[in-house]
Amino acid sequence: MRDVVVVAYASREDALILARGLEARLAQSVAVRTYLVDDDELVDVSSDTLVVSLGGDGTFLRAARLAHQADAEILGVNLGRVGFLLSVPPESLFEEVDRALAHQLATELRVALRVTSSDQPINEFCLNEVVVERDQIGHMVRVRSFIGEDEFLTYSADGVMVATATGSTGYNFSAGGPVLSPELEVLVLTPVAPHFTIDRSIVVGSDQVIRLQTLDRDAAIVADGKLVGQLHAGESIMVSNDPRGVKVLATEKLGLGSRLRHSLREGHA
Amino acid sequence: MRDVVVVAYASREDALILARGLEARLAQSVAVRTYLVDDDELVDVSSDTLVVSLGGDGTFLRAARLAHQADAEILGVNLGRVGFLLSVPPESLFEEVDRALAHQLATELRVALRVTSSDQPINEFCLNEVVVERDQIGHMVRVRSFIGEDEFLTYSADGVMVATATGSTGYNFSAGGPVLSPELEVLVLTPVAPHFTIDRSIVVGSDQVIRLQTLDRDAAIVADGKLVGQLHAGESIMVSNDPRGVKVLATEKLGLGSRLRHSLREGHA
Amino acid sequence: MRDVVVVAYASREDALILARGLEARLAQSVAVRTYLVDDDELVDVSSDTLVVSLGGDGTFLRAARLAHQADAEILGVNLGRVGFLLSVPPESLFEEVDRALAHQLATELRVALRVTSSDQPINEFCLNEVVVERDQIGHMVRVRSFIGEDEFLTYSADGVMVATATGSTGYNFSAGGPVLSPELEVLVLTPVAPHFTIDRSIVVGSDQVIRLQTLDRDAAIVADGKLVGQLHAGESIMVSNDPRGVKVLATEKLGLGSRLRHSLREGHA
Amino acid sequence: MRDVVVVAYASREDALILARGLEARLAQSVAVRTYLVDDDELVDVSSDTLVVSLGGDGTFLRAARLAHQADAEILGVNLGRVGFLLSVPPESLFEEVDRALAHQLATELRVALRVTSSDQPINEFCLNEVVVERDQIGHMVRVRSFIGEDEFLTYSADGVMVATATGSTGYNFSAGGPVLSPELEVLVLTPVAPHFTIDRSIVVGSDQVIRLQTLDRDAAIVADGKLVGQLHAGESIMVSNDPRGVKVLATEKLGLGSRLRHSLREGHA
Repeated sequence: MRDVVVVAYASREDALILARGLEARLAQSVAVRTYLVDDDELVDVSSDTLVVSLGGDGTFLRAARLAHQADAEILGVNLGRVGFLLSVPPESLFEEVDRALAHQLATELRVALRVTSSDQPINEFCLNEVVVERDQIGHMVRVRSFIGEDEFLTYSADGVMVATATGSTGYNFSAGGPVLSPELEVLVLTPVAPHFTIDRSIVVGSDQVIRLQTLDRDAAIVADGKLVGQLHAGESIMVSNDPRGVKVLATEKLGLGSRLRHSLREGHA
Repeated sequence: MRDVVVVAYASREDALILARGLEARLAQSVAVRTYLVDDDELVDVSSDTLVVSLGGDGTFLRAARLAHQADAEILGVNLGRVGFLLSVPPESLFEEVDRALAHQLATELRVALRVTSSDQPINEFCLNEVVVERDQIGHMVRVRSFIGEDEFLTYSADGVMVATATGSTGYNFSAGGPVLSPELEVLVLTPVAPHFTIDRSIVVGSDQVIRLQTLDRDAAIVADGKLVGQLHAGESIMVSNDPRGVKVLATEKLGLGSRLRHSLREGHA
Repeated sequence: MRDVVVVAYASREDALILARGLEARLAQSVAVRTYLVDDDELVDVSSDTLVVSLGGDGTFLRAARLAHQADAEILGVNLGRVGFLLSVPPESLFEEVDRALAHQLATELRVALRVTSSDQPINEFCLNEVVVERDQIGHMVRVRSFIGEDEFLTYSADGVMVATATGSTGYNFSAGGPVLSPELEVLVLTPVAPHFTIDRSIVVGSDQVIRLQTLDRDAAIVADGKLVGQLHAGESIMVSNDPRGVKVLATEKLGLGSRLRHSLREGHA
Repeated sequence: MRDVVVVAYASREDALILARGLEARLAQSVAVRTYLVDDDELVDVSSDTLVVSLGGDGTFLRAARLAHQADAEILGVNLGRVGFLLSVPPESLFEEVDRALAHQLATELRVALRVTSSDQPINEFCLNEVVVERDQIGHMVRVRSFIGEDEFLTYSADGVMVATATGSTGYNFSAGGPVLSPELEVLVLTPVAPHFTIDRSIVVGSDQVIRLQTLDRDAAIVADGKLVGQLHAGESIMVSNDPRGVKVLATEKLGLGSRLRHSLREGHA
């Protein structure tokens, strides 16, 4: 039987009010639980759970991690300013949850990343991007990149990331990377503020493995904006397509073009 | 029965000497003809023809057009400085032609573009990119872009291009676009020197159709560096995946990483 | 005695109507003549002439050339969409012309460029930028740059420009260059769509001379959007500070910050 | 009477050996002391002291701070890979120190920055740049910028910096900023990885004051790569020209062009 898990930050009152509204509304038919991202309490999710993200892109990334563990579907409700990942406006929450529970929404399978290391006990999932970045103020990291066996560029930079198409409008965009249609099965290698090196992104198929190796100095490993580990000089992470993608529920949504134009106008408001 | 067509510019003596060498060598076994790009004479190519490009990336683009018409295979020999499209060094010409004729080389199918217009009798093939660009000195064009039915950005720019992954290291790269692994089935929308608009590329699946519409002013349509038509204000071109890709013969080649590092060093020599 | 020359494009009816209005208004006191940019008729301007530009940035650049010849002052009225160079909205035309004639407006002296060549009989003034650019479709130019005796980068590009601070929000901005406060006495070297070379601008003092030399191939010389000459392979232009700047009349204008924010929002509308 | 202070990192043995060599050589004539950057011990410097920086650009920035306090002259010896700030190769150390002590080297006065705040007891000098940057992993800062009274853009970014012309080849360059001739009296505003905002630098005269205000969230203040304070949401720093520049000793040095070409080749090695 289906149940609903709502994901929100404890600090977002608008999200909590909506969550309570949803609980009240569905009380008779399905179990609704609210998962607060902040206190990292555990919550059981099964493949029949509908995960509803109430917040901005950051909340969605946390919700996606939760949903992905159980191969559950996720519905993104946009309470944020930009919300590139989010297809449902808050006023459509009830309606879209009903449609989702009735299996009336199409599922888009999004490429996600699996981050491992032969040097570290790291095994992380992320949906947007993983970054190897400086962990000291005022010091660049030096990162060598490999795609499969093929050595690519070596960057002195604030960081070097591998992003998905879904994540292309996130940190990748800030760092100068291209916008990619979210269904594309690719990995995007983008340096952040590289010194005296070309700053162009490199896009390869998601069947490739990208290796990022730190030289000289330690570096932080940041997955979807969360610190998940430390690389020592000489160590590497391997970034590949997670064998299981993320099941995102699609609604009659704004196209990428409209969102892009909206975000650019907003960005300069 | 197989035959060979060598493509070269009449002005490249090194290419012509190599072509004559190849003719002499294969005289007993297969027919070798040389096609000079410059004088645009016709040459018959069948699907059994091996098209050999002797020159730089520009020659290869001409050779690809020729090969594509007949669905023939193409082997790119690098006589140029960069040669991103070209896998064979000149000293391996004879050997690789032998392997190609013996069907010992793998064929990579590359996405190419089909450019049409409902406003103009245009029906063009290109392998690298098509550009809608200003045709007057000192005047930008204004181009509105659509991906499928979805309106994207409107650019005031020197031009707006749609490139393939194969073409990503060409004009797309100059204009600030990302490098894409050549087998990716995508279209890349990249503006050239856009005024007061974001200059980031947009990458979509090759099942999409990109429409570029000129506003205000006429514009030139340039496919693989060749003028192929004129758009009047208000008219559009549609750019899509050519139903038939280009059959490029692959050799044990330098990886994209090595080429990129080499080209960047050269670029700053 | 002071007189007024209005500069406008014949095709801009709004400008011509305003010009006629101004003539009528000032008929009793000062002579008003209208100079149409398009037909390149001659018009006498003295250092006592007030040159009034009615149009967009393009009109202003033509008006500046006219004013500069006679060391006359120029007042820019903004009938265009962007108008970075233009401080007067059309509704303030009469008022600001009165103030200008009464010497109540401050004069800003803007750095302009002098373009010469030891290989060509070129001697051009420009206010925004001079570009050495490709004159053939589909072919980059190769341009070597020198600042004084110091060799800088060599670009394969659509073009290479030297811009003033005044011109920094024009073509320089499209090509990726920085925005500079218009009073800065600097020259800005910016490549347009350079291939495999760093695309960063280089800013030097206006006491420097920048030399741009074409290699391999002919190139067009374009000053403020107007073709002014042709460089043959191996030839150079020298770009320096014009000994006489352009006298731009300043009003209580929008700051650069407001204009920039406005233009960026507009650019993504 | 003149004395010499050598600045080096304790961890750089090559620097310490050179320092000892210099001490031995000058023992009879002038006092030589070595200042180790790492242990932050105090060292007395007077306006007659010759400060010698032995290391890379990072060492030079520390040495410049020391020299600036006492208005002393500084000589930069390049033991690093890039060394844009450094004019003396290690093999010329003795010779150039002799010339410096004999007042045979020209002094270049470089613009430096003074960083203050009306919200914080901050009063910092820096030579390259000051950055208001995120102090939390995975969270952008929001920074509003003002030049004088004129509001400029608001950035969501990893950071926003104000750099000098001297610092333009440092972090400013990594972040996409232009290269400026080091004698230029300007301030350069450059965002680091800004989201959905134009990433272009803004260059203004060094008589301007740039204010950076954090919105929403706390931020770190980093001057020449060193953490110097914390801004709370709503607080601002003011960045202006330090009334006293830094006295850098010039030798017959490589021009900026050669250095740039060298660094770009190195960057892609």
